[in-house]
Amino acid sequence: MSRYAIGLDYGTNSCRSLLVDLDTGEELGSVVFPYPSGKLGILTDPADPNVARQNPQDYLDGMVTIIRGALEQAAEKRSDFDAAEVIGIGVDTTGSTPIPVNGEGTPLALTPEFADNLDAHVWLWKDHTAYEEAAQITALASEMRPEYLAKCGGTYSSEWWWSKILRCRNAAPEVFAAAESWIEHCDWLPAVLTGNEKPALAKRSVCAAGHKAMYAKAWGGLPDKEFLSALDPALADLRDRLYDEAFSSDVSAGNLTAEWAEKLGLKAGITVAVGAFDAHMGAVGSGVKAGILVKILGTSTCDITVLPVDRDLADVPGVCGVVDGSVLPGHYGVEAGQSAVGDIFLWFVNHLVPDSYGATQDEKFIEMEKRLKGSKPGSTGLMALDWNNGNRTILTDVRLSGMILGQTLHTEAHEIYRALIEATAFGALTIINRMEEYGIAIEEVVNTGGLAAKNATLMQIYADILNRPLKVAASDQTCALGAAIFGAASGGSVTIAEVQEKCCRMRELEYHPIAENVAVYKELYEIYKTLHDAFGTSEWSGQLGPIMKDLIEIRQRQRA
Amino acid sequence: MSRYAIGLDYGTNSCRSLLVDLDTGEELGSVVFPYPSGKLGILTDPADPNVARQNPQDYLDGMVTIIRGALEQAAEKRSDFDAAEVIGIGVDTTGSTPIPVNGEGTPLALTPEFADNLDAHVWLWKDHTAYEEAAQITALASEMRPEYLAKCGGTYSSEWWWSKILRCRNAAPEVFAAAESWIEHCDWLPAVLTGNEKPALAKRSVCAAGHKAMYAKAWGGLPDKEFLSALDPALADLRDRLYDEAFSSDVSAGNLTAEWAEKLGLKAGITVAVGAFDAHMGAVGSGVKAGILVKILGTSTCDITVLPVDRDLADVPGVCGVVDGSVLPGHYGVEAGQSAVGDIFLWFVNHLVPDSYGATQDEKFIEMEKRLKGSKPGSTGLMALDWNNGNRTILTDVRLSGMILGQTLHTEAHEIYRALIEATAFGALTIINRMEEYGIAIEEVVNTGGLAAKNATLMQIYADILNRPLKVAASDQTCALGAAIFGAASGGSVTIAEVQEKCCRMRELEYHPIAENVAVYKELYEIYKTLHDAFGTSEWSGQLGPIMKDLIEIRQRQRA
Repeated sequence: MSRYAIGLDYGTNSCRSLLVDLDTGEELGSVVFPYPSGKLGILTDPADPNVARQNPQDYLDGMVTIIRGALEQAAEKRSDFDAAEVIGIGVDTTGSTPIPVNGEGTPLALTPEFADNLDAHVWLWKDHTAYEEAAQITALASEMRPEYLAKCGGTYSSEWWWSKILRCRNAAPEVFAAAESWIEHCDWLPAVLTGNEKPALAKRSVCAAGHKAMYAKAWGGLPDKEFLSALDPALADLRDRLYDEAFSSDVSAGNLTAEWAEKLGLKAGITVAVGAFDAHMGAVGSGVKAGILVKILGTSTCDITVLPVDRDLADVPGVCGVVDGSVLPGHYGVEAGQSAVGDIFLWFVNHLVPDSYGATQDEKFIEMEKRLKGSKPGSTGLMALDWNNGNRTILTDVRLSGMILGQTLHTEAHEIYRALIEATAFGALTIINRMEEYGIAIEEVVNTGGLAAKNATLMQIYADILNRPLKVAASDQTCALGAAIFGAASGGSVTIAEVQEKCCRMRELEYHPIAENVAVYKELYEIYKTLHDAFGTSEWSGQLGPIMKDLIEIRQRQRA
Repeated sequence: MSRYAIGLDYGTNSCRSLLVDLDTGEELGSVVFPYPSGKLGILTDPADPNVARQNPQDYLDGMVTIIRGALEQAAEKRSDFDAAEVIGIGVDTTGSTPIPVNGEGTPLALTPEFADNLDAHVWLWKDHTAYEEAAQITALASEMRPEYLAKCGGTYSSEWWWSKILRCRNAAPEVFAAAESWIEHCDWLPAVLTGNEKPALAKRSVCAAGHKAMYAKAWGGLPDKEFLSALDPALADLRDRLYDEAFSSDVSAGNLTAEWAEKLGLKAGITVAVGAFDAHMGAVGSGVKAGILVKILGTSTCDITVLPVDRDLADVPGVCGVVDGSVLPGHYGVEAGQSAVGDIFLWFVNHLVPDSYGATQDEKFIEMEKRLKGSKPGSTGLMALDWNNGNRTILTDVRLSGMILGQTLHTEAHEIYRALIEATAFGALTIINRMEEYGIAIEEVVNTGGLAAKNATLMQIYADILNRPLKVAASDQTCALGAAIFGAASGGSVTIAEVQEKCCRMRELEYHPIAENVAVYKELYEIYKTLHDAFGTSEWSGQLGPIMKDLIEIRQRQRA
């Protein structure tokens, strides 16, 4: 008899499933469902580019398609496949992606009264309408409750829970008034599947709650009413209709209802894990444990590691999420990230790389990588800052921008591309260094996401700059795999570590630091760090006069 | 009866003539002769990219072609044209471009023994083999004779007279030993035409001598023998075989010999002016006088103005040439420049502008200018430093490089192009500001060179940033025109001012500062100046933290 679990990964434009054999790690089925509503699944407002909402019905429709599809694929692969041997389901979603719900736990958007009201829909993570509210919360917390801010790196974001709810209160008071409660997307789906939709029944994710809802056991859960009241008394009232306790995803959110079991073709009563955010489950699906940093390398990055809770851990300045149980139970989850990585390369290739490199985006990337073959660190003479989209960690400042220096009259596009890759790697190293300064040792880096799988030039530069071995997760669906692991573990018959051991495989190809490159990059990192501190902080003082000369000196040495 | 003069302009790849009517200013003939030797007239060495030499025979062959051609054109234009009414010839050349000569004043390269020896040829201005010798001279002068350095902005260049001669002494001692003397290209041609080739007879140009040969009346002409001896005793010996006095170009170098008169089709005995460097004569051909800065806007720039010698003028730090009579007699010539201007735009368009802007370089420039129409100062959010080829004035530092900051994920090529134009204009303003700090007022700017004539976008940005009216010289041949003016004036029958009045015309189109742009550029210049001082000097201290935020703030304001 086999044991399977299903992970569901709800992304920004689509959701996808993964059905995995818990004993062999084999991935037997995976289906994608693009959200049909709006533009690529996102409801926008022509009058305000900050608006990004979703239709909760897309989530439900997608659920059936992707689970049934995965089961069919598994049955095709294995003649003896039995859907009754699926022992659990886990769910990850984007976040913070809050949904206003009525007393039954039904999203207001699914009620006739609010079906056409954009503010009654799902407030997607990338909705930035609440930037003023975020600033207000940051200002108040730094006065009244600095401990709240310390846990989220010093700045509360417009992408997070309270900013969005306060924004709704200000911009759409009729929606706010009609909302009995609010629920994260990742909490709503397990609640639906287990029949625990009523706000008081739905189990909330500690991954979503802390730091994005400022939840911590240390201060009794959500922010206290005095603080919320100072923002808006209505928020203090709302607190009573939210939750007191949040759970890690090894906990069961309940059992699959008969109704949903029938819709999905699964056995009723199997466990559904408490949900979590995609990156956190992706880290688990990539085999995160103490000493391992998982980097989800995409248009932006999410960098996640864990530290056993019995270790002393101070707040880590500029690292935006340190939450007990947010990734693995019994561990602090530590979350950081870079606001743009792949996005910087896409910007560059689409706006500044001439067609002599190729006709398409892909051809241009391939040709640039080809021309970089054999070139040495520092040989471009260039140094860039990776802030075209601001800096999430460790500066937590959106009002920063890109920079590149060292250009001559001969600098070519592929050299700038190399400098941009290096800048993102230096940014990644700055994150790791900050973690290590606060006692979170990183011995190895596991990478997942498109860039990790496709870009060997980048991966070797990263290995040289991070000066650590770099592995690449074998699964193309590490988030869904993490969700499946929690789905299995929340039933209690297996542990997370046991399933990780079986399912979290690495690609054979690893990237190891090359000693002579490491040495040059250490020199270059000093220059990066000087520029980083000079442009990114208000405390820096020093001299920049030697920088251009140092880069020229290194260039001459590395080209000789 | 008419009066004409001929100006000869010897450039890097070709020479050209201009025949001008001194009473009407009409330009009656102009012919170009591309140097036939080497690659575009330059003799190179595959083993050393710093080598740039020329064949003096090209200059003589070109002379006949361009003068006879101009006379023919004039005769076609005017049936009553009489070559006997040409009253004088003036010559400008590149520099410092020294030529080793024998006791007869014949270039060694034109003697059989040295015909194949690259080091015995003309050492073209852009020959950079002498970089070590330049550093040695700078170091010694800063110890022993700081006053020498002060006159040339604090750094002696590898492009200049003594660096090259010392390099020849070190690298080609047999050439050095065979050279009875050395002569600047601009001094050799008038000597040839007037039969004064013997080193003792040739009249030397004060424009070439000071600061590039460290000549100044104040210390008795060329550098003293003690100083030269400390560099190399052979240089001190050479000093005796050079010259004691140098002259401005209103002085006659002699009279045209019968032999050359016949070759050229001119009247024997007419005056030939003392030569000078191209930019200095170009300034005169553009109507330079006190209060007017002439900018020769090309791949690099040369910025020239004058100040009456009766005014008090201290050495101007970072301004590389302040020489009595180098531009106009009775005036200090003040010379500055930017190492790359047009070259920066060419680098950008050729390496980083995608074909969506057009298929050719010209189409890309035109399309970028089109897309910039209507955009406001500061609206790009970008700020660049114009140092891709180092900084000639006021930092006199080749070991600097380009920089650009403020990029987002949406920054487009034409926005960067605008930032690069602005950076070169801020660089130009920095030069003017330095001049004014030292009492050299600049009320108006006259521009000449390709960019001034062709690029209206650039010219308006320059007017707004320099905050002065910008005129454009009407002649396409301002260097040759300046040479013709000196050719005429060196005979004594007309003054320079009289000929300038008749011949130095301006285009009708002028560029005037737009008040609201001026105000924004004042803010932006503060940012430029902070970056300029931070990266370009060793004295700066301050904060760069506000810079990216200030640029974002200005961008938002200017886009609103």
